[in-house]
Amino acid sequence: MNLVKDIAIPSPSKIVLLVIDGLGGLPDSQSGKTELETARHTNMDELVTKGICGLVDPVAPGITPGSAPGHLALFGYDPIECAIGRGILEAVGIGFALQPGDVAARGNFCTIDDKGLITDRRAGRIATEKCVELAKLLDERTIENVKVIVRPVKEHRLVTIFRGEGLEADAGDSDPQQTGMAPKPVMALNPGAEKLARVANIFLMQAKLLLADHHPANMVLLRGFSKHPHLPSMSEIYKLKPAAIAVYPMYRGLASLAGMEILETGVNIEDEFATLEQNFNKCDFFFIHIKATDAAGEDADFARKVRAIEQIDRALPRLIKLKPDVLVITGDHSTPALLGGHSWHPVPMLLNSKWCRSDRVMRFGESDCIHGGLGRIPATSIMPLAMANALKLTKYGA
Amino acid sequence: MNLVKDIAIPSPSKIVLLVIDGLGGLPDSQSGKTELETARHTNMDELVTKGICGLVDPVAPGITPGSAPGHLALFGYDPIECAIGRGILEAVGIGFALQPGDVAARGNFCTIDDKGLITDRRAGRIATEKCVELAKLLDERTIENVKVIVRPVKEHRLVTIFRGEGLEADAGDSDPQQTGMAPKPVMALNPGAEKLARVANIFLMQAKLLLADHHPANMVLLRGFSKHPHLPSMSEIYKLKPAAIAVYPMYRGLASLAGMEILETGVNIEDEFATLEQNFNKCDFFFIHIKATDAAGEDADFARKVRAIEQIDRALPRLIKLKPDVLVITGDHSTPALLGGHSWHPVPMLLNSKWCRSDRVMRFGESDCIHGGLGRIPATSIMPLAMANALKLTKYGA
Repeated sequence: MNLVKDIAIPSPSKIVLLVIDGLGGLPDSQSGKTELETARHTNMDELVTKGICGLVDPVAPGITPGSAPGHLALFGYDPIECAIGRGILEAVGIGFALQPGDVAARGNFCTIDDKGLITDRRAGRIATEKCVELAKLLDERTIENVKVIVRPVKEHRLVTIFRGEGLEADAGDSDPQQTGMAPKPVMALNPGAEKLARVANIFLMQAKLLLADHHPANMVLLRGFSKHPHLPSMSEIYKLKPAAIAVYPMYRGLASLAGMEILETGVNIEDEFATLEQNFNKCDFFFIHIKATDAAGEDADFARKVRAIEQIDRALPRLIKLKPDVLVITGDHSTPALLGGHSWHPVPMLLNSKWCRSDRVMRFGESDCIHGGLGRIPATSIMPLAMANALKLTKYGA
Repeated sequence: MNLVKDIAIPSPSKIVLLVIDGLGGLPDSQSGKTELETARHTNMDELVTKGICGLVDPVAPGITPGSAPGHLALFGYDPIECAIGRGILEAVGIGFALQPGDVAARGNFCTIDDKGLITDRRAGRIATEKCVELAKLLDERTIENVKVIVRPVKEHRLVTIFRGEGLEADAGDSDPQQTGMAPKPVMALNPGAEKLARVANIFLMQAKLLLADHHPANMVLLRGFSKHPHLPSMSEIYKLKPAAIAVYPMYRGLASLAGMEILETGVNIEDEFATLEQNFNKCDFFFIHIKATDAAGEDADFARKVRAIEQIDRALPRLIKLKPDVLVITGDHSTPALLGGHSWHPVPMLLNSKWCRSDRVMRFGESDCIHGGLGRIPATSIMPLAMANALKLTKYGA
């Protein structure tokens, strides 16, 4: 990444990275074809025919990535070095605007008995409306000059953000992960985290008092304390003006961690491509995220994933008409409908540009991409390749 | 490896890693086919047709591995970080049960003249029986509370193990590697190794006295002091219950360094597969080592290597009938009969599992594996891939 930073130059050329979430799949036992191989996608195939293909390992062979490492790798960050903590990811997932220095923790409303022992870690899965109401009750407290922000997530889940000077996140959970025990005090795991632990424990004490009359949600458990990761921004690294178009808050949040501008958009792919058209002159790098494929894969719905791919293909001409200098289409990981979840299988990728040195692959699919000119590459190679094809990287060394 | 350790989970699924030593080859100039491509192996081809293939670099492109790095990489250890010293490897090679903390050195019986100068570094290659007799003479001495264990190897070769507290192995050889010179005193190369150097020098002085009347084997030379490498065990890393089936002590020794249980077996592949059958319910990972291919390659015997591969293929149905969830067949390195020794050429690999995402390769061979879905991977990726295909790895990151 430092190498790329040293040789990146600004230029008017434009890169579009279209991420089809969970794109890779596994073959149906009858047809022997994956979701992508089953789908009709003449536009993608035309891009492939003039482009270059390969298979991408988001993290490493055999490793199944979550959404955060999957996307960070696509943006060029080492997904192991730049691990995103659980608390931060939860904040990102609800679209909370994190600031550098923030520490976040995931939380549950829970039930305790009159001895203070946990009887239900999820407070009977209270309704989301109740969660919103109780989060408001706890929100915006200030303890030792640290602002404690509480946001509802869904049902019994909440996220707590600690904002102030001198906070480190290396602290243990208050959630003992079992019933019949009292919540644990938050323990600093190194001296730097003592202030955070103190503030968190005072907050938890206050929460207990404030929630006393709100049985079954009469206490809060916190876990996964983690700190804003302070990634160098994509404009620092690549000298780009990068923008993100994503319907779901999680992906907008991940893009904002990478320093992208988040463009307002609607609820479907047509909205996203309209947003791209409206902003195409404003920025020179666009990350577009499409969720439907992953959702269908997670639901083990092979046919729905096929249809989602076909729908994307039908919408593609709008994007192609904008003539980005480099268009990359890939996924953040595979989500085979047969497994009903993320998997370790490498992800098909196509790169289309005037300078890509096209290979002989004619169809976009897992088995064809094996024979692509890009070979099998780590996802962190995608940004350097896109930059090079956009003629945004100068020579390394004399 | 730390990443895999964090996400590995125990499960009842079973992995078999069948290592055909020196599997890769070079094409015969007449037929244009390698040993593997010449051999008839319908069972392997059926596994390939339903499985996924690739080419494996044991250490790195261009690097010819010895048996130790070749196997450690297959077991998932970085073969450069986890280098095994010469002395330790010699002890492993005779099946000596090393303990943590042990320091071992390779040795030669040699001949010295009446001035103490070396006249023959190999003592006229004394018979192995003589070596056994003289090793017994030197064995089981205790010097400064350090037990010095001496074991015969073959002809003039022996191995010396130093067992006791506070031993470091960073010490120079006593073997000057030439005649006409006196054996060198063992020199500590850092302060921590001073105790070892002292003990080794006293041992060598005692050996000189004990061997005085045993011309031509009237002295001992030591080299390659090295320490038990303390690898994290495969059960720690992978949460597996791993077992090894190997005829030769060297490979049992390497497996035991990785913490595998060593299963007693016979002398040929049928014995090894019988051992697998008998123990299949006991463990969930089996490393099976087959030597005949490498031995034929080392002897530059192309036809014998072909026959060895055919013999393995004929025996395979016994293994396949056990239905391991994941079956990997590969080698620890190439041993082309044309070169008569280990080589740097990448090794063909096949992986067969329900979730492997099969490629279009139909035959097991070097030229076909180039087009396999695994691409060209480092050997250290094999264990993560096998673990993933056995559904023994959870997601990395949220």
